[in-house]
Amino acid sequence: MGSFKVLGSRVPRTDAYDKVTGRALYTADLVLPGMIYGAFVRSPYAHARIKKIDVSEAMKVPGVVTIITQENLSRDYALVIEEEVHAAQQVRGLLAGEKVRYHGEKVALVGAETLEAAKEAAALVKVDYEPLPAVTDPREAVKEGAPLVWDDSQPVTAPDGSLLYNVVAEDHRSEGDVDQGFAESDLVYENEYYVHRVHQTYIEPQAAVAAVDERGRVTVWSSTQGHFVVRSNVARSLGIPLSRIRSIGMTVGGGFGAKFGGVVDLYAVLLALFTKRPAKIVYTREEDLLDARPAPGLYIRIKTGVKKDGTILARSAFALWNVGVGGGALWATGAFTRLYNIPHTKWDAYEIATNTPPMGAYRAPGYPQVLFAGETQLNQIAADLGMDPVELRRKNLKAEPGFFETLEKVVEKVGWFQREKGEWEGWGIALGHWRNASSPAGCIVSLDEDGTAKVYTGLMDLTGTETAVAEIVAETLQIPYEDVTIVRGDTDSAPFSPPSGGSTVTFSVGNAAWRAAQDLRQQMIQLAAGQLNALPDELVVADRKIAVKNDPERSLSFAEIAQTALRSPSGPLIGKGSFGGDPSDTNIFVQAVKVKVDPETGKTRLLRCVQALDVGRVINRTQCEGQAEGGALQSASWALMEEMQYDEQGRMINPNLADYRIPTAFDVPDMETILTEFPSRHGPYGAKGIGEPPITAALAAVASAIGDATGYWALEAPVTPERLALALATRQPVRAR
Amino acid sequence: MGSFKVLGSRVPRTDAYDKVTGRALYTADLVLPGMIYGAFVRSPYAHARIKKIDVSEAMKVPGVVTIITQENLSRDYALVIEEEVHAAQQVRGLLAGEKVRYHGEKVALVGAETLEAAKEAAALVKVDYEPLPAVTDPREAVKEGAPLVWDDSQPVTAPDGSLLYNVVAEDHRSEGDVDQGFAESDLVYENEYYVHRVHQTYIEPQAAVAAVDERGRVTVWSSTQGHFVVRSNVARSLGIPLSRIRSIGMTVGGGFGAKFGGVVDLYAVLLALFTKRPAKIVYTREEDLLDARPAPGLYIRIKTGVKKDGTILARSAFALWNVGVGGGALWATGAFTRLYNIPHTKWDAYEIATNTPPMGAYRAPGYPQVLFAGETQLNQIAADLGMDPVELRRKNLKAEPGFFETLEKVVEKVGWFQREKGEWEGWGIALGHWRNASSPAGCIVSLDEDGTAKVYTGLMDLTGTETAVAEIVAETLQIPYEDVTIVRGDTDSAPFSPPSGGSTVTFSVGNAAWRAAQDLRQQMIQLAAGQLNALPDELVVADRKIAVKNDPERSLSFAEIAQTALRSPSGPLIGKGSFGGDPSDTNIFVQAVKVKVDPETGKTRLLRCVQALDVGRVINRTQCEGQAEGGALQSASWALMEEMQYDEQGRMINPNLADYRIPTAFDVPDMETILTEFPSRHGPYGAKGIGEPPITAALAAVASAIGDATGYWALEAPVTPERLALALATRQPVRAR
Repeated sequence: MGSFKVLGSRVPRTDAYDKVTGRALYTADLVLPGMIYGAFVRSPYAHARIKKIDVSEAMKVPGVVTIITQENLSRDYALVIEEEVHAAQQVRGLLAGEKVRYHGEKVALVGAETLEAAKEAAALVKVDYEPLPAVTDPREAVKEGAPLVWDDSQPVTAPDGSLLYNVVAEDHRSEGDVDQGFAESDLVYENEYYVHRVHQTYIEPQAAVAAVDERGRVTVWSSTQGHFVVRSNVARSLGIPLSRIRSIGMTVGGGFGAKFGGVVDLYAVLLALFTKRPAKIVYTREEDLLDARPAPGLYIRIKTGVKKDGTILARSAFALWNVGVGGGALWATGAFTRLYNIPHTKWDAYEIATNTPPMGAYRAPGYPQVLFAGETQLNQIAADLGMDPVELRRKNLKAEPGFFETLEKVVEKVGWFQREKGEWEGWGIALGHWRNASSPAGCIVSLDEDGTAKVYTGLMDLTGTETAVAEIVAETLQIPYEDVTIVRGDTDSAPFSPPSGGSTVTFSVGNAAWRAAQDLRQQMIQLAAGQLNALPDELVVADRKIAVKNDPERSLSFAEIAQTALRSPSGPLIGKGSFGGDPSDTNIFVQAVKVKVDPETGKTRLLRCVQALDVGRVINRTQCEGQAEGGALQSASWALMEEMQYDEQGRMINPNLADYRIPTAFDVPDMETILTEFPSRHGPYGAKGIGEPPITAALAAVASAIGDATGYWALEAPVTPERLALALATRQPVRAR
Repeated sequence: MGSFKVLGSRVPRTDAYDKVTGRALYTADLVLPGMIYGAFVRSPYAHARIKKIDVSEAMKVPGVVTIITQENLSRDYALVIEEEVHAAQQVRGLLAGEKVRYHGEKVALVGAETLEAAKEAAALVKVDYEPLPAVTDPREAVKEGAPLVWDDSQPVTAPDGSLLYNVVAEDHRSEGDVDQGFAESDLVYENEYYVHRVHQTYIEPQAAVAAVDERGRVTVWSSTQGHFVVRSNVARSLGIPLSRIRSIGMTVGGGFGAKFGGVVDLYAVLLALFTKRPAKIVYTREEDLLDARPAPGLYIRIKTGVKKDGTILARSAFALWNVGVGGGALWATGAFTRLYNIPHTKWDAYEIATNTPPMGAYRAPGYPQVLFAGETQLNQIAADLGMDPVELRRKNLKAEPGFFETLEKVVEKVGWFQREKGEWEGWGIALGHWRNASSPAGCIVSLDEDGTAKVYTGLMDLTGTETAVAEIVAETLQIPYEDVTIVRGDTDSAPFSPPSGGSTVTFSVGNAAWRAAQDLRQQMIQLAAGQLNALPDELVVADRKIAVKNDPERSLSFAEIAQTALRSPSGPLIGKGSFGGDPSDTNIFVQAVKVKVDPETGKTRLLRCVQALDVGRVINRTQCEGQAEGGALQSASWALMEEMQYDEQGRMINPNLADYRIPTAFDVPDMETILTEFPSRHGPYGAKGIGEPPITAALAAVASAIGDATGYWALEAPVTPERLALALATRQPVRAR
């Protein structure tokens, strides 16, 4: 590839100044005239029948404006919106009706003049519960006699003929013939792995503000990864015509997949509809941990057949996803087969309802869980075969662009085959991967009178993607990054944009922006050709001007071109780009870690963390490294710390950041990151989405390093100090229950 | 022309709900954290030398943050913005330096924590003045010995050989040979007319808020007719790179030509730059009347030569525009020749500096003044010839599309040739005209997933032009008006738009919107053709769907098309329109009035007001009528009430709405309005800009009706009760001095 002017640089993020100076406006910063505050009445039980809700005392609290329960919601909703909408049936399930099904579930919603009054009233709502037995572990939930989360649930028959209870969805896939594959194998390994549910623990809790005007037009401000998704969710969930909803994305303090709407935004809209006043709901940390959209847990049994030389012949999996009262995890199950040449594969996956909150997406949804199992098992097999784990990968890895090269970069950087370790130290390596989503997106790029460019999109920027889009435009127009202004529009005016998730937006909005910039560039060249009396292909674009190649004195600055356009029939120069979603390519992520275990306390410390990521094309080097390192750390945290813990009654016992641990600066080793560039066929300048892959490898890498350090292979994540110390003391595999 | 679905209707304005419910956000509503308030120290003299400014007492007022004078501005400005800008020389003239040149001129600017503190401090700034003689009347200002407004002013020689003083600009045009024309005429009339300066008296006084961030990026919120103009003005006036300025147009409470920036916005930016805090400046009514951009006054001598049958052979004018300390009026002088076939024409026009505020644009800038003279004189001539004034027009009117037809509509509606009048009653008729400006504009129209359209522009809507643009889009896409959402963007993201003035935006932005909607429509048809397996021209667009003409069951709804696009290679459907400015066409405005004069008090009452306006194409009937009636009333108000009055020392004596009278509901007769449609060649659906023409005829119509009622022809506007009563009592022509 040619050399780049802007791509590959380390320009500061577009949002950097506003964030470091405190100018950035978050949803919680919004105060609207006459605004009321929402507070929820939440279930203290994981499972219970609601016998009665009495709001009479609560309504007496001064400042209380309304209290919404599912009963009055179902009854009155048609009245608060235009009758034509007939949406009463669509608002079921927003609040608990006859039953609560998880600890912290929303039972009622108080709207009051102040947050204090709302909370006081919420505490005074009397709910008469009849507690029911609860289940939070999918391994228990599938058993006969387990509490049924959904009353109408029917058991399904598993491949082994047993009955599985609480199944809400299932999927079965196979290629080749695994039975034949296992039969032809020299050795067949079967292991069970378990990953607890974890929470995205973004810095900014869920927050939304809503207002309804006299015409019934709804405006929603929210902390979201996709304001267009919020709009369609509100429309669908509340039966409001799409065009009567304006969704405004505010600055977002992290999302990691949990901020696609539905957690607080719908409720802010309900309050606004019921009271005709603006309404604000901001979660506390406890509410967020109890009742948001954490990742699903996973029980998975993986069976792998290999030849003695390490050649993998067959792999199968039986998976139970703990989806809480939600769903949507099945599709990730196949992630364990993707990177390797395996003739025979099969998986049977089930979504299991439990008395825990509905699952949501979490960075590379499902991949950390599945690859914890898949990659850890490969390391166990290598150890059993007396093979180096890298050799096992080299033997089986698919020959796709960048797979081998990215692996070898880590091998080289670590000095893998000369690696050393001290007492209680160990090394682990694992591979992860992702293929970014490719989504429809639009973008407008126009040239201002001073020759600078402005970009208008509907892109929600959580991770620097706006910077990436600005760089793509600058590169395409051959102007400095500083000459590009990028603005996010709301759903009333911005071109359609996909939500920021699945590593989609640099690829998708980036492509739309590239097309818009190309469109603009063509118009500029056309205009300049006319003005300079030259053919378009005699012109060269550089240094903020367009010049005749062989006569560089004949040139027009970008400012002159923009101003000339305003005086010419063409009018203002506006480039438009629409992208419909071309196929994307997998990028590989390779991570090697060195750990040291304290055998007495069971505490594992990361000593080195070396990772290589195929980014397709480096748009912004600092941000690529940031994504790689952030993901590596986040998954190491899954490996060692993070777990939503439930007691026997199904109540979450650690809904706070003192007990739900996430890493601090003290937990972070020096990160060594290598970026490789194997261009995506359709990515803008070859770029691949890079948000997801870095979280997919560390669970297995860390667990395997612990295995290397201690001889004990963790089969359950997280490998907390307690679990590891107990395992080492009892010489049992690190495994729950 | 075909029939229309949306055009010609009376749909409510896009801004109606927000305005009647109080939701609309005006600049004065803005409160930013840490914001300071600006107040000006103003000259109590119309002309004086500033010997000393002492801010020491003022600085002691608690809450005062800064006091800016021209001295410290010139000295410190380079320090407060980046040095590279070297803009110190560009900030001269923002505040009075060695001299003040009009009553109310800005001498210093106080920024304080509260408005009260700012005003208190402003009152404590001690300015040592040496008063100088002042001149406010251009007829005096041109004489030898008159005070010179500008020190370096040199006299110029008039066509008659005399010297004219205080001239700041001049222009001389002729066609044919007027001397020959007058020689060939049977009768030659020469009259002098005088129009006082009048103020636009928009409801919302001038207001701006500015903020500067840590990077030196400036944001300006203002009540403006064009935020793109504000941006370029701030850039040029303060030497700030264009791309470092974000200009946000707020809801505007009227402008009429006076809100193109420079009055308060620059000063809010200065305060923000000097203090690093957001700053707000909101004019009081008195400040606005003393120191904004009122219309220029005009002395004009018109000479007209006619045959006895009324055929006009020659017309010439000698004009002295009272531009205060500003300029820019010359170009309108020729308006008196435009409508008629006149073989010989000539005009000599001068801009005369006086000790009054700088002139600005006011609806059809200069035309009301010039046509007061031109049309009143024609009525005087008709009376003198014993001809009906309509007959005189019929004889001389150009045969351009709509001219005759529009005149005849009024004749018919009034029953002109059967008109009756009682004692002290009279009839007047006059013609006005305008040719709308045609300016570069861009627009984006995209299709949402529900099949509704959204429009994104940089259009500042003062008079319903946003509604017009939305209707044009709805008509082009064949969807209901309610299916269109239109949003104004700021200069950081919106396509370039011209300011709302000169009746340009329905024509220009309307064309851009039409092109964008056409572009979108083509994309929709293309997509539908592929989906429906039909050729594009076999399809018909109607009722929110695209169907096969001969097989209407085969169809796709707009929503389906939008959703299909999102799943297809085309991506989101976005239409783009750029318009460079095609030639526009003149529209004529005809107004007939009937008045009744009270001979004792001199008070004139409007009894009937009948007007016809060629709108080219009715976009919105209610708004067309509103423009016609608003303009008719506004110019009737010029005719009877409005005048900025100055005392002998040049001080304005009526800077308030008690003494500067504008009409109330009691002054408004029933309005009878006829719209004619003679399409503009390049207007969207033939539409012409209609803001200006309705203000161009009533001065002459009302003055002529008074002449018809009393036998005395007003040569000075306004014809106030005092002037008329005096004239009737003394039997003198109604003329000043």
